[in-house]
Amino acid sequence: MYRFANGAAWIGGELVPVAEARIPVTDWALTHSDVVYDVVPVWDGAFFRLDDHLARFRASMEAWRLAPPEGPEVIRAALHAVVAASGLRAAYVAMVAARGQPLVPGERDPRRCANHFYAWCVPYVHVFGADAAARGVRLHIAEGVRRIPPDSVDPRAKNYHWGDFTRGLFEAKDAGADSVVLLDHAGNLTEGPGFNVFAVIGGRLVTPAEGCLEGITRATLLELAAAEGIDTETRALPRSELAEAQEMLACTSGGGPVPVTHLDGHVFANGAEGPVTARLRAAYWARMAEADWRTPVAYPSAAPAS
Amino acid sequence: MYRFANGAAWIGGELVPVAEARIPVTDWALTHSDVVYDVVPVWDGAFFRLDDHLARFRASMEAWRLAPPEGPEVIRAALHAVVAASGLRAAYVAMVAARGQPLVPGERDPRRCANHFYAWCVPYVHVFGADAAARGVRLHIAEGVRRIPPDSVDPRAKNYHWGDFTRGLFEAKDAGADSVVLLDHAGNLTEGPGFNVFAVIGGRLVTPAEGCLEGITRATLLELAAAEGIDTETRALPRSELAEAQEMLACTSGGGPVPVTHLDGHVFANGAEGPVTARLRAAYWARMAEADWRTPVAYPSAAPAS
Ligand SMILES: Cc1ncc(COP(=O)(O)O)c(C=O)c1O
Ligand SMILES: Cc1ncc(COP(=O)(O)O)c(C=O)c1O
Repeated sequence: MYRFANGAAWIGGELVPVAEARIPVTDWALTHSDVVYDVVPVWDGAFFRLDDHLARFRASMEAWRLAPPEGPEVIRAALHAVVAASGLRAAYVAMVAARGQPLVPGERDPRRCANHFYAWCVPYVHVFGADAAARGVRLHIAEGVRRIPPDSVDPRAKNYHWGDFTRGLFEAKDAGADSVVLLDHAGNLTEGPGFNVFAVIGGRLVTPAEGCLEGITRATLLELAAAEGIDTETRALPRSELAEAQEMLACTSGGGPVPVTHLDGHVFANGAEGPVTARLRAAYWARMAEADWRTPVAYPSAAPAS
Repeated sequence: MYRFANGAAWIGGELVPVAEARIPVTDWALTHSDVVYDVVPVWDGAFFRLDDHLARFRASMEAWRLAPPEGPEVIRAALHAVVAASGLRAAYVAMVAARGQPLVPGERDPRRCANHFYAWCVPYVHVFGADAAARGVRLHIAEGVRRIPPDSVDPRAKNYHWGDFTRGLFEAKDAGADSVVLLDHAGNLTEGPGFNVFAVIGGRLVTPAEGCLEGITRATLLELAAAEGIDTETRALPRSELAEAQEMLACTSGGGPVPVTHLDGHVFANGAEGPVTARLRAAYWARMAEADWRTPVAYPSAAPAS
């Protein structure tokens, strides 16, 4: 098999198969989870909303005061390089900025570390599985864990602090659900491991304003809803309001919008995809194909087709 | 130079120099900070309170539902092996349990991952520098960040979620302090990056009960205080009470107890080490030398002496 077929990584200035990309066990990216990242999807040979993902990545780095030596052009080139090397036409592409290690061994000053950047890609990830759109997703609201609050770790800077999600995921999987949504400490919905959420309440599309990542798929759906004449509200979404919701959906770069058919005991739209979700899902996949939003991957002319 | 002189690691069943120990960039230990650990100090050729650190490590793994295949005896042997290989007589020894990667690629179920264990050591770390005991430490209480609450990520399971600490450390370093202490959302003291705290208030030694790791050094100091006839209180410690405190100290396996001379504007004991801290510090280092608490490292007879 082609050496990079399972994915490729750009790390330390070199291209390697993704399985060979490693970081030291003493890197603060690991030992302090001192690291931010972003994930941009490649669909049908092109990045979707690449500039938006790069801008969010830059904002995450700034929020965490991470400044790897690689500038925007090197980062952009690395993203093209990993996808081109893999030959993948649909990929999950991660860009990562890590604190690294202290310039003076033993020092504990985050201002004085050798920050570094790396990137990697694997075949396109469907967070809920490839058949989730057809099947619908069962979510669980965690009882035993709350989302890490923004004044502890701000979720708008995309980060690897997933201990709350993992605890919630165990609870969800044990309960037979596909995934979990976490509440904040005030009882409002936030997000899940890798996705934002929307509810359709009285014909309006509502998504949590705070306590979550400002997802690019969420932004796309808000734009598409406006274009479709669907009213939207970005505001606090208390758990109690879901009893009145007609539909619920989860959305992520890893699979786009997918219908949530069950939330614990509650069944939305008779367990099928609701009409608003169906319209948004169709609009989303149409937009994924529009040239304006796409940046074709710089594949070498001899790249393996798929 | 001797290949392992800067430290050694046991990973994937092999002994390597610490700088060569790496994990994949796709391991959930990194991408979800899905990992627990412990650190046991080696002092003068012996582990200090090894069984207590192993018990806490086991409790952390259980709390996170991590179950690497390596049993207690393999873990214990790995700790001896890394220190023995390094020849270090004073070392910082880390044991780590990582989620690993899904057994079925692409799956997102934390119950179905290849958990793994590794261990590494480096020369003994003084969290506040080797001269901190003589110099005294300047701490800062973070204004812009609160400790991650226990119902999001429980600090009693020793983990790498340090985003709150890092944000606080930047604030502290910018303010000219050595390190930071975080408050919880109720305004009580919790802990700092790598240490617990005590205050001496009206002759009593007070340490936060909740929102922090149950530090082994903290436990040692509570025991030593009792033996010395110093009253102790493990309870909520509101920031406001520090105005009345006569002394403050920080404590960690990485350097033992050290006097805190300054907390933002407040100066303790005229900027010198207070009498209670001095007694506890002497008692701590005496205990570090007591055979009952020590497990001599199984150095090979030909190990380099130091
Ligand atoms: C925590 C979290 N929330 C939401 C999302 C969705 O964001 P996006 O639509 O930009 O992929 C992600 C990432 O995929 C995420 O990790
Ligand atoms: C967050 C935190 N609190 C407290 C401590 C002190 O614990 P111990 O005395 O067991 O080293 C540590 C580790 O050293 C720590 O990482």
